[in-house]
Amino acid sequence: MTYEAKVKLPFLIRPENTARYEDGEVLILDRRVYPFEVKFVRCKTYRDVAQAIKDMVTQSGGPPFCAGYGMAQAAREAASKSREGILEELERAAKCLVATRPTNNSIILMTERMLEVGRKAVQDGQDVEDALVKAVDARFEARHKRGLALGENGASLLVDGDSILNHCWAESGIVYTLYVALQQGKRLKAYCSETRPYLQGARLTADALCDMGIETTVVTDNMPAYLMSKDMISKFFTGADRVTMDGSVINKIGTFQIAVCAHHLGVPFFAFCDGPDPKAPTAADVIIEERDPNEVLECLGQRTATPKATGYYPAFDVTPPEFVSGIVTGRGVFSPYSMINYWK
Amino acid sequence: MTYEAKVKLPFLIRPENTARYEDGEVLILDRRVYPFEVKFVRCKTYRDVAQAIKDMVTQSGGPPFCAGYGMAQAAREAASKSREGILEELERAAKCLVATRPTNNSIILMTERMLEVGRKAVQDGQDVEDALVKAVDARFEARHKRGLALGENGASLLVDGDSILNHCWAESGIVYTLYVALQQGKRLKAYCSETRPYLQGARLTADALCDMGIETTVVTDNMPAYLMSKDMISKFFTGADRVTMDGSVINKIGTFQIAVCAHHLGVPFFAFCDGPDPKAPTAADVIIEERDPNEVLECLGQRTATPKATGYYPAFDVTPPEFVSGIVTGRGVFSPYSMINYWK
Repeated sequence: MTYEAKVKLPFLIRPENTARYEDGEVLILDRRVYPFEVKFVRCKTYRDVAQAIKDMVTQSGGPPFCAGYGMAQAAREAASKSREGILEELERAAKCLVATRPTNNSIILMTERMLEVGRKAVQDGQDVEDALVKAVDARFEARHKRGLALGENGASLLVDGDSILNHCWAESGIVYTLYVALQQGKRLKAYCSETRPYLQGARLTADALCDMGIETTVVTDNMPAYLMSKDMISKFFTGADRVTMDGSVINKIGTFQIAVCAHHLGVPFFAFCDGPDPKAPTAADVIIEERDPNEVLECLGQRTATPKATGYYPAFDVTPPEFVSGIVTGRGVFSPYSMINYWK
Repeated sequence: MTYEAKVKLPFLIRPENTARYEDGEVLILDRRVYPFEVKFVRCKTYRDVAQAIKDMVTQSGGPPFCAGYGMAQAAREAASKSREGILEELERAAKCLVATRPTNNSIILMTERMLEVGRKAVQDGQDVEDALVKAVDARFEARHKRGLALGENGASLLVDGDSILNHCWAESGIVYTLYVALQQGKRLKAYCSETRPYLQGARLTADALCDMGIETTVVTDNMPAYLMSKDMISKFFTGADRVTMDGSVINKIGTFQIAVCAHHLGVPFFAFCDGPDPKAPTAADVIIEERDPNEVLECLGQRTATPKATGYYPAFDVTPPEFVSGIVTGRGVFSPYSMINYWK
């Protein structure tokens, strides 16, 4: 189904505002300062891209695209080398980019895909850099189509008058879900938990949902259960950094806490992803990333905690399947207990 | 029992650092900027005190003492008036001070007590201002004794090696509990949820616990369930702005959310208070204060949310008795289902 553009896609969802490739440079929207500043970080080499990913310049859906363009930069750097030299450089770049964020599986998938494209281009004597850039652009196009397909499935869960709670960045899947539902004429409200320490909910999700004309309210991370207890939320939505084959949802820290409360208060929880990870049979197979403890002691660069204390920053948590109502993918909405059906 | 001062009472718990009365002025520690700045707000009249309470210069245990000194200021202002004139002024001040924070019952209790003291002083021809100041000072002394008594009861729940999670400001009851337990030679660790939007956990509780030499870690408000799921927390403690006769705990927003998760994860939750409120048979009898929505859109004065969104700020929530393991008071630890025993 195609929709008339009655609703505009948000600024943050348009590909050129995630990452761009310009004459060998990768420009990445700095999500740490958006929406207070619209600034792109310029990366001259894939090592700069890796640093930017490590520094959280971009998050969730952004890193794989940046990594893909980083691979193109590696090809450009090695352009004058032998075929073997180019492939070695690509492999070096892939390793460097994958090492940035161990929980983000999509960087691994993207660099593997780019290695294949690179090998084929070398074999066929094509311009490797150009082939890689085109391959990343094609992934953006595929993301848009996947977004619409996922949005169709997600929108099937929504009814007129729904009030959605979202934690952390809504991911393109959820944005497309609301986009499709709005086009279908459903009226929606949204609440975003701010998502400390990076405030993705307050800064990014709320921004994107407002762009689509949804009445959007920001709350702090200690308010979701209160909202649910007052019947202000009909559905809890989040993206998922990873869904394991046993239906565990690995997502931004805080998801688990809200999911437990949602379960207790009778609010269904749906996690959105491209599909479960066949390499992760259970949650025990996923490394939970811990980040610099000092990041929880400040907010937008300003100290928030007493100088006497230390911090602790587990960046993700695991929501077991008993708290998950459904996994929403481009292939349909699945029970967390039947992830294997995704592959059928 | 008296303890040798092996452990120092934290800066924030000493009376002079809550509020002081100096020549008709009330000096209130500005908890909004502490511990980054040690600054006292000078209030020349009870109206300034009311404004300071409204502006959240002081919180939880602080407002009643400030209100008490505010009553002394009213007596000073009216000193040249007739007996009736003084009493009218005291009643006007009490109304003004009570109106600042409807959820905080202790302001009502303090102003009622001060009205009595005032009436008696007028009747006996005493210096009313002086009588009121002395009465507030006596309340500070009583708080210290109550703190120690409460601390004895709280410490009876703690064992060597316990790791405590606290949400929002720990209140003197919890600080005294840890103080007494430390004196008893128990080794303790603590986690503080930062408590957005005012960061009482990160700024105040963590500061006070560090003052006593406890290894204290600050986390964001979306991390408590994760900590509990990793067996990092043995007990969840909070103060309580109000405990109703049916055992509901009214406390800082977020308490309910953590209590639900604690229940699910097998961590006991204890709420600390001076006693249940006989005027509140059930949670339905307590007004939940909603504050300026803009306060959730910023942190320490810096904007945190997209300019496009609005906020919502319910300042307290209600934890029903099924999620409460015990109510800790100076008279003992009670089941939330038998609050009536407190009065026996």
